[in-house]
Amino acid sequence: MNGAQALLRTLAGCGVTVSFANPGTSEMHFVAALDAVPDVHGVLCLFEGVATGAADGYGRMAGRPAGVLLHLGPGLANGLANLHNARRARTPLLAVIGDHATYHARYDAPLESDIGALAGAVSGWVRRSARAADVGSDAAEAVAAAMAPPGCVAALILPADVSWSDGAEPALPVAVRAASPVPEQAIGAAAKALRGGEPCVILLGGAALRRAGLAAASRLATGSVRLLSETFPARHERGAGLPHVDRLAYLAEFAAAQLAGARHLILAGARAPVSFFAYPGLPGSLVPDGCSVHVLAEPGDDVAGALTALADLVAADAKPTPQQAGRPAMPDGDLTAETAAMVIGALLPEDAIVSDEANTSGLWLAGATAGAPPHDWLTLTGGAIGQGLPLAAGAAIACPGRRVLALEADGSAMYTISALWTYAREQLDITTVIFSNRRYAILGMELDRVGAVSTGQAARRLLDLSEPDIDFTALAAGMGVPASRATTAAGLAAGLRQAFAEPGPHLIEASVPQPF
Amino acid sequence: MNGAQALLRTLAGCGVTVSFANPGTSEMHFVAALDAVPDVHGVLCLFEGVATGAADGYGRMAGRPAGVLLHLGPGLANGLANLHNARRARTPLLAVIGDHATYHARYDAPLESDIGALAGAVSGWVRRSARAADVGSDAAEAVAAAMAPPGCVAALILPADVSWSDGAEPALPVAVRAASPVPEQAIGAAAKALRGGEPCVILLGGAALRRAGLAAASRLATGSVRLLSETFPARHERGAGLPHVDRLAYLAEFAAAQLAGARHLILAGARAPVSFFAYPGLPGSLVPDGCSVHVLAEPGDDVAGALTALADLVAADAKPTPQQAGRPAMPDGDLTAETAAMVIGALLPEDAIVSDEANTSGLWLAGATAGAPPHDWLTLTGGAIGQGLPLAAGAAIACPGRRVLALEADGSAMYTISALWTYAREQLDITTVIFSNRRYAILGMELDRVGAVSTGQAARRLLDLSEPDIDFTALAAGMGVPASRATTAAGLAAGLRQAFAEPGPHLIEASVPQPF
Repeated sequence: MNGAQALLRTLAGCGVTVSFANPGTSEMHFVAALDAVPDVHGVLCLFEGVATGAADGYGRMAGRPAGVLLHLGPGLANGLANLHNARRARTPLLAVIGDHATYHARYDAPLESDIGALAGAVSGWVRRSARAADVGSDAAEAVAAAMAPPGCVAALILPADVSWSDGAEPALPVAVRAASPVPEQAIGAAAKALRGGEPCVILLGGAALRRAGLAAASRLATGSVRLLSETFPARHERGAGLPHVDRLAYLAEFAAAQLAGARHLILAGARAPVSFFAYPGLPGSLVPDGCSVHVLAEPGDDVAGALTALADLVAADAKPTPQQAGRPAMPDGDLTAETAAMVIGALLPEDAIVSDEANTSGLWLAGATAGAPPHDWLTLTGGAIGQGLPLAAGAAIACPGRRVLALEADGSAMYTISALWTYAREQLDITTVIFSNRRYAILGMELDRVGAVSTGQAARRLLDLSEPDIDFTALAAGMGVPASRATTAAGLAAGLRQAFAEPGPHLIEASVPQPF
Repeated sequence: MNGAQALLRTLAGCGVTVSFANPGTSEMHFVAALDAVPDVHGVLCLFEGVATGAADGYGRMAGRPAGVLLHLGPGLANGLANLHNARRARTPLLAVIGDHATYHARYDAPLESDIGALAGAVSGWVRRSARAADVGSDAAEAVAAAMAPPGCVAALILPADVSWSDGAEPALPVAVRAASPVPEQAIGAAAKALRGGEPCVILLGGAALRRAGLAAASRLATGSVRLLSETFPARHERGAGLPHVDRLAYLAEFAAAQLAGARHLILAGARAPVSFFAYPGLPGSLVPDGCSVHVLAEPGDDVAGALTALADLVAADAKPTPQQAGRPAMPDGDLTAETAAMVIGALLPEDAIVSDEANTSGLWLAGATAGAPPHDWLTLTGGAIGQGLPLAAGAAIACPGRRVLALEADGSAMYTISALWTYAREQLDITTVIFSNRRYAILGMELDRVGAVSTGQAARRLLDLSEPDIDFTALAAGMGVPASRATTAAGLAAGLRQAFAEPGPHLIEASVPQPF
């Protein structure tokens, strides 16, 4: 069999059963092989950033990689921003990047570029298959590398002749390295800090924000020991019955207030907190002065195991504190970011998956949904906007039967708007709410925060999304997604109820004023 | 003044008067400075790939760089594919990439990534400004580097604190290196080949496809000396009154037929021809066996001067042969790629600028427009689709008063569809024709050409743009561009006539069958 067929058979054997794709000529044998290997489902995306973002969403929810098929350096480039987000999320993800035939590179044909340099910027593992006979084992190693805790982007560069040449064989799966056990010293040091009675914050990240980690962490919370989540978790299990954890704020000033007074900061799968951006005169590190930092578990460690061992040591009899069920009262009147959050909190379906790229319009979402039925919350891990819509596609494909809610800022939505077409093609159960405030609202705020002084129209026009107003219902309809517009809280509620009651994708353009 | 202000004042002094932008927090001082330096016009794009493609179109038409403002590594990544095309076009272009404050990099904040690796893949010149006092001279050198013949992408990485710190001053323009004179030996060798009387092809690229180069080359054409253009010229001046030059075909088989029998290949601003992709059993180089290659002029040389000197040497009395004026008869009946080309040829306005990303639907365009009034033709230089709509925006801004016609394949259009919003925002005189055949038609053809055997539905669905059909008139309306659909030749003609008669952007979705 040829290299492409061996690749797909190997992937199927490793549990990689979905490949998001935006193929080109050099990937045609991979595409053709999809008919020979029906265990791998090809999902067409109309732009590579949609494909990579979808693979990120899939990997976050499935816990195993999807493939994403990209066309040489330019195709990889188009998918790179969402691979950056996947890198920050530590998502297991397999990027297969088609390349020119090995012997064609020397001609410097128009699409030739430095694929290795681009792949290296986002990947934890990069390999170029040299011949068809290697493809099977390369693919199996790539999957194992992607899945090795905490997870990473693995990039397999596949020259066209390696793909089309015969003499390839599928390889068996390679054993995936387990999460590293946490040394007793680390647990002992954290225990000592906790027992000292000084104000302490346990910062949870990665696997600590899943059910087992949260349960263990919750046992550790006391009057002097507070739990916080990293600012942008890849996947946070939350809602009624699960222990509640507040997220560290995006704004450095607010985050500093949350951490103020802590004498010990225990990191459980999270990194030491830093300011998202630098601001004149403000520190970059958010660790308070005089606060000791203890690394309980690195992201690739057995984070939940470490938290459990720590709880057994210092709080043997303590039980987790579940979040009480409770939804906001259904609001009335105008639609604002705040009332929209209340409507969403009132209606969020059980087991929903939320892809949150609502940005400034999302400030009230965490509070409004805290007591909703259990759900998963996925956030913008790497700051590269244009993630939310693709991420939802991948989550929906990873979890058929679950409702996906994409909460999306208007500015961010426009980066990867063609994700809607894939929603329609695959008839995904995704409800999209576009928070349309017709501004890059966060930049209006940041303009002030960095101390930039703007006096006129030129700067304002670069932060403004009106002139012309974007009609998201028209965009959705143009890509086969039924859409409506809500201008009142009741209108949003009606739209959500209908969307949640019907199969397939729906979009609601929620007209909201700027939050500040 | 601060670094951002010094940067903008320097750019204005160097003739860089437009900056396409998709800014973020780290670029807020640049944005604020646009009000202090009104000589630089900021143009908002809703996705970085639109901004970089527009800067490419601007640079091709203006002959001097536009700026493009990008937000850290992810913003650069989103703009990278069209920078790849700009690199292949040798367009003078200045990318200003905002970065974290210098002292913030060590915190590895979420948006941190290897900007240098990405910039290096597409740029001929890369520098990171170290302090505010350097920004002016860095910017002046960047502009000179971008403009040095044949032109390149210059990337200036601008840390936020360098941008916001005081102590900066504008710098004077740096002298731009002139095109290198062509050595007499090269002219002599080409002359010898031409005088030998053996079949000869002169392959024209870059500046050779502008008016002066074409006039000189045309004097050299005889029964045994044929002229051809590189396959994907950055800018080709053509139409009635200008010498006609056929383009070397995209398909290697056709290109080989065009070159068959040539004993000498003289390169004037073009590279030796190679196959766009490798195909099993076909050669990568398109130079016929036994054909000698003579480099008359490299792309950075004085190509037109070399052709003129050569013509004066071997054809002193010869005159250029102008293309006769002539338009196709207006067709009737169904709309096909062929009849669409005839309609376009019949109606193309004088001095039009055509951004051609029609791909397979564009096969008949060259013939149908050969005798139309003089116009510029811009093509997809680097093979990274999603260029055409942004390119048109930049060309329109570079050349107010000229009509721009964007001829766009449906699949390619979806990569950077938000360019339409910028058309509406800036009220650009761009008429967009979307060739909607609901397929990645070129891939259907390539699937066969590379010998990939597909037996079923899985592969076909990855090349198919139906299910759901895309309604481009809805997408255009959603972004403020008036749109219509044409299903007959007469309908397309009516749509074009109306669009050319009115100011501002228009879009026509031309429903065409697949060409093969």
